[in-house]
Amino acid sequence: MTQLTLTSNNRCFNGEQRYYSHQSAVTNSEMSFSIYLPDEAVAGKSCPAILYLSGLTCSPDNVTHKAHFQQKCSELGMIFIAPDTSPKGEDVANDDRYFVGQGASYYVDATEQPWAENFKMHSYIADEFYDLIRSQFPISSVGITGHSMGGHGAIMFGFKYPSKFISVSAIAPVCVASESDWGKAAFSEYFGQDSNQQQAWAQFDAVNVVEKAGKQYPLILVDQGAADDFYIDGYLRPEALQQACQKVEQPLTLRYHAGFDHSYYFIQTVIEDHIDHHYNAALSHG
Amino acid sequence: MTQLTLTSNNRCFNGEQRYYSHQSAVTNSEMSFSIYLPDEAVAGKSCPAILYLSGLTCSPDNVTHKAHFQQKCSELGMIFIAPDTSPKGEDVANDDRYFVGQGASYYVDATEQPWAENFKMHSYIADEFYDLIRSQFPISSVGITGHSMGGHGAIMFGFKYPSKFISVSAIAPVCVASESDWGKAAFSEYFGQDSNQQQAWAQFDAVNVVEKAGKQYPLILVDQGAADDFYIDGYLRPEALQQACQKVEQPLTLRYHAGFDHSYYFIQTVIEDHIDHHYNAALSHG
Repeated sequence: MTQLTLTSNNRCFNGEQRYYSHQSAVTNSEMSFSIYLPDEAVAGKSCPAILYLSGLTCSPDNVTHKAHFQQKCSELGMIFIAPDTSPKGEDVANDDRYFVGQGASYYVDATEQPWAENFKMHSYIADEFYDLIRSQFPISSVGITGHSMGGHGAIMFGFKYPSKFISVSAIAPVCVASESDWGKAAFSEYFGQDSNQQQAWAQFDAVNVVEKAGKQYPLILVDQGAADDFYIDGYLRPEALQQACQKVEQPLTLRYHAGFDHSYYFIQTVIEDHIDHHYNAALSHG
Repeated sequence: MTQLTLTSNNRCFNGEQRYYSHQSAVTNSEMSFSIYLPDEAVAGKSCPAILYLSGLTCSPDNVTHKAHFQQKCSELGMIFIAPDTSPKGEDVANDDRYFVGQGASYYVDATEQPWAENFKMHSYIADEFYDLIRSQFPISSVGITGHSMGGHGAIMFGFKYPSKFISVSAIAPVCVASESDWGKAAFSEYFGQDSNQQQAWAQFDAVNVVEKAGKQYPLILVDQGAADDFYIDGYLRPEALQQACQKVEQPLTLRYHAGFDHSYYFIQTVIEDHIDHHYNAALSHG
């Protein structure tokens, strides 16, 4: 049984904002995460949970400090969990570019050195961390969401493992990671650069995972700021996700928000709609 | 006319979260502040404003990122303004202790060197900054609030200058600054240590300002976390504020919140009640 170490606990609305660390057998490193537990969950009652995957450069702090999910989760009795974006620390490989290495796992399992030693975030999130939270906290169901690189992760995990997640949403997701300049740089490090490998990259793209999996959810929700420079410059490509969803008849609500950028000011503006989306799925799930 | 430089602008809910910098003639330094403008204010309509004074070590970032005032201010059409806690920069005097120097002005005007050159935060907030925001933004009235050292500031300014502020509240305020270990260290630097000076320190204490001013507001609101270590260790002393208010018949709502600490997790839990307090005062103010 994995040992959890409670590193902080702050009362927030009618619940507790906690941080934990634990040793991961998958990433061969210490990993940290934050979890908001409404009082019902603290008392041991099973509650629906949202797993939030963060974007490039982030730790669990960004969403925990800046997304303002606690008030709504307190009201609805939902658990909100934010794992880290990669293994981290002096003993873990890194890169000077913010879109490669620590904080930039893309939630894949690297096969090339020096990354393969620790960068196994796909297996970590889908298996070890998923099992850990379900065994350690009173969770009745799990919805998955995320921002930017974490939106890529949320769609990828949601459609690869529909038996594990009851609902999917994303905020400003990277929809075609392998074709973005960020993803090309990261995947060439994690998987190698030869042409066979490059074809393999696309299997992790949100759009390809959706096309391969077909319809899995009654409705998925995606929000995109229309003034987001990364969207304007083609890093995110929500229109490709829309096409993939249309192709397999996966219902999608894709909303563009005039004036909003890629920051947590946008995330906090739409986060309550995402919490409602996952809460309603949990109600239907029973 | 003081020139404002817009340093960032992010859309957030139905409004804009902006940061500005400007050269201050009072502190002889560049000063920065954040301001949330609901769309009504962006369009030029006069709106009520809340001036929020931050605590030790803070910049305008802490409250702007972590207090989550934007949603409520967007709904009510309120402006929210957060100045810095002191002059800052390599050319400004500083101290290794977090409760003295940069980030720890106590909102007083220092008379001793090296502080007197820049540490004129009392005059800055009460005069220069107050006039600046009223001349540059469509503000119909100003309420004042703050956290910890900033709660001290909010009560002090509110009761020294009741013609400038229509309402006062505070979160975990330092109520007797001159008798706290923090304040003793800071005031002995800013005002000098001889016994005449030490008597002068008390004139800035929230409790003494309230006693001297007498009743000024229909009701002031103070929230205190009951598990706040600084409260437990006697740095804050809300009971002294309660006694001062009773003495001069200043109505006070003082609420203790079981389990809550001194962090922004507490602030975000109560901030909407403070926004309501100031909004209702603005409605009454007409």
